[in-house]
Amino acid sequence: MDLDPVLARIDADLPNALERLMTFLRIPSISTDPAYASDCDTAADWLVDDLKSMGVAATKRTTPKHPMVVGHAEGSGTHVTFYGHYDVQPVDPLDLWNSDPFDPAIEETPNGKVIRGRGAADDKGQLMTFVEACRAYHAVHGKLPAKISFFFEGEEESGSPSLVPFMKDNKDELTSDLALICDTGMFDPKTPSIATQLRGLLGEEITITGPSIDLHSGMYGGAAMNPARVLVKILASLHDGKGRITVPDFYKGVPQMDPALKAQWDGLGFDDAGFLGKVGLSKLAGENGKTALEMLWARPTCEINGMISGYTGDGFKTVLPSKASAKVSFRLVGQQDPHEIRKNFRTMVQEMLPEDCSVEFQDHGASGGVQMETTHPAFEAARTALSDEWPNAAAFVGCGGSIPIAGHFKEYLNTDAMLIGFGRDDDAIHSPNEKYDLESFHKGIRSWARILHAIA
Amino acid sequence: MDLDPVLARIDADLPNALERLMTFLRIPSISTDPAYASDCDTAADWLVDDLKSMGVAATKRTTPKHPMVVGHAEGSGTHVTFYGHYDVQPVDPLDLWNSDPFDPAIEETPNGKVIRGRGAADDKGQLMTFVEACRAYHAVHGKLPAKISFFFEGEEESGSPSLVPFMKDNKDELTSDLALICDTGMFDPKTPSIATQLRGLLGEEITITGPSIDLHSGMYGGAAMNPARVLVKILASLHDGKGRITVPDFYKGVPQMDPALKAQWDGLGFDDAGFLGKVGLSKLAGENGKTALEMLWARPTCEINGMISGYTGDGFKTVLPSKASAKVSFRLVGQQDPHEIRKNFRTMVQEMLPEDCSVEFQDHGASGGVQMETTHPAFEAARTALSDEWPNAAAFVGCGGSIPIAGHFKEYLNTDAMLIGFGRDDDAIHSPNEKYDLESFHKGIRSWARILHAIA
Repeated sequence: MDLDPVLARIDADLPNALERLMTFLRIPSISTDPAYASDCDTAADWLVDDLKSMGVAATKRTTPKHPMVVGHAEGSGTHVTFYGHYDVQPVDPLDLWNSDPFDPAIEETPNGKVIRGRGAADDKGQLMTFVEACRAYHAVHGKLPAKISFFFEGEEESGSPSLVPFMKDNKDELTSDLALICDTGMFDPKTPSIATQLRGLLGEEITITGPSIDLHSGMYGGAAMNPARVLVKILASLHDGKGRITVPDFYKGVPQMDPALKAQWDGLGFDDAGFLGKVGLSKLAGENGKTALEMLWARPTCEINGMISGYTGDGFKTVLPSKASAKVSFRLVGQQDPHEIRKNFRTMVQEMLPEDCSVEFQDHGASGGVQMETTHPAFEAARTALSDEWPNAAAFVGCGGSIPIAGHFKEYLNTDAMLIGFGRDDDAIHSPNEKYDLESFHKGIRSWARILHAIA
Repeated sequence: MDLDPVLARIDADLPNALERLMTFLRIPSISTDPAYASDCDTAADWLVDDLKSMGVAATKRTTPKHPMVVGHAEGSGTHVTFYGHYDVQPVDPLDLWNSDPFDPAIEETPNGKVIRGRGAADDKGQLMTFVEACRAYHAVHGKLPAKISFFFEGEEESGSPSLVPFMKDNKDELTSDLALICDTGMFDPKTPSIATQLRGLLGEEITITGPSIDLHSGMYGGAAMNPARVLVKILASLHDGKGRITVPDFYKGVPQMDPALKAQWDGLGFDDAGFLGKVGLSKLAGENGKTALEMLWARPTCEINGMISGYTGDGFKTVLPSKASAKVSFRLVGQQDPHEIRKNFRTMVQEMLPEDCSVEFQDHGASGGVQMETTHPAFEAARTALSDEWPNAAAFVGCGGSIPIAGHFKEYLNTDAMLIGFGRDDDAIHSPNEKYDLESFHKGIRSWARILHAIA
């Protein structure tokens, strides 16, 4: 199928594509908060209808939590499955947003036009780049350029509890020659990227209980155990003075950096100062002796994502809290075993616990790091197609975030995955004022049109 | 004036006294939360009206925050000023209350009847023991037994910002021969107590900022500074392995324990196991080598009263928080200088701060420890009066809580203060399901009638 009229159609239809994205962004599909369950359902319905409008046999498939959307379009050549997620992160702290997160708008900025709103980049905007590329093929050629399956989930931001069971239960339907995943970023605004390694994610919540009720800090303070003091001692012990993580056997399975890949990364000229400066920082805060890209792409982490204890409202309350809790996550690489690390972390916490405290653990999911098969010919084809669209040649990069779906395609469906996305570092995903550049959206659609043309 | 008919009147009028207390308890006068400002005002009005009903010239006096109530009754003999506070603590966590905190009720318990509700013990119930004793004198003898001034504040649970300025501005009006303060407890349910030393309180809130916005823990984790990690490191460093506080020069001004007083305290037979067991604990958690009563009455403390950072809702959010904050308080004894300690604490925090973090401090008040003049003859008179009412002889005790008003009477009005209260250790003040025993209320009223008779 001819590519040029498809690219022309994409350019001409951009205003309509934006309108569709805005409609999609207005649905507050926050998956982690049960209050938004019906909105997640609405988002799934919207996708089903949209896929049907371009001749895709699409259905909403229920799960114990939020529904999946699966669609199939017949075609010849390579069979690809496209994955994206329609759910979004919570929006708090809401008072730091300059506008309603679910009333998206196009804004002029010094760097060009952006689409502002929760999910604009992560992942609704990215998901729609692929859908719009398919729509353009359908409009021009009356059909899609290949046999394409669509697979959208609504639990990516809340640990994907239904994903693996659903993939196992629908193995035949979801298996294809290659999975395409659009949930990553560009190396920089001129350099498109194909992510070839991703960090895994292990989420834990620990709740320490000391006294059975909140106590008056005057009546009990000095004699009674304060669980907040126990919690901070445990959390403070998770890193040593060199920034290394102290959980026993934590670094088992962390690979040595391949010298050739390290040389390639060093050659990218990553701007440490700019990366940190954008968010008000100036110093790398990770392991001593590692470069920024190693810290972000090739090294594991342990972070406190949230903690709470006692009185946190206005004013002061002289209370000895009964409970103290923290959400802690680990980013994992290479062959690190998330289940082994969870076990060792829990043992470490238990061993630091004074006699008068008890601890409860909550499992917030686990996935190991993922390494792509870059020898698959589609990687080279996609690299060339991306290089044709953008000013700089495409790069193989790592991704610090966790996209467990990539590993799942390999593990459960024996399908290789290719991760290509058009996000930028300043998209503020998971933060207030999330945005997606109009250029990312427009050239992202064009990029998928080129990639489908190249690998079909 | 005859005491016996006053005691008889107290017994006969108890149901009405309880009704009055219930009405008072229904006013949600939470002083620390601005949403309840008008309720604080209502509580003050209620007190003014109640004092007027027994012939006291009472007025509500505005302050920049919550009003004071001041009243005067003419009489002969010793001029005493009675102090209490009409404000109460916040009620969260509300879901741990078995009933509405502001819909008080009399409940049967295995230990007898209790008055359940926020403020029942701290301090509305205690305050009313004195008021009801005066009401009985007025009913029987047509006047109060001495020249009595009343001084009620509404900011005790929120740092008393208006108290000292008000005392200074109204020095002549509030000065008397002796201040009576009812905001403390009994040593045990059979042993009434006169508190002769109280700990001071220093409140600080620290907020550490790292990145300028919340960050995605995958995109930035490992390279960017996490202020929650900085906060827990600071908080964990505040105590050494022996339970001693590490703020520089912290123990300057902490007195050696007087051997005679220590012998007296040791002789009280304090039940460590029972004290801790009631709240689900079993081990003393304070400084090595100190007894429980020393930890509670004679030693300073440092406690985390609250902390918060990042995402604390349901589920999980892979965020690197921009901010992390904690409310920290110090209980102080002897000659410890709260202002010096605040300065040293802030310097210590600043020195632990990495280059990329900033810190803001919020001052939540400061008061030093207080030591009573037990040689004042009223102490002996009150001890005898209390011993007449209760099964055991009255004891001189310490108080772990901070009642800055006692020090203020001495410092600003040159008036000695006597702290007598009828609370019990299990009153759950500042906690869910606060209560005050009916016996505390009834015999508390009778105790004040006896004390006024003895010292008038």
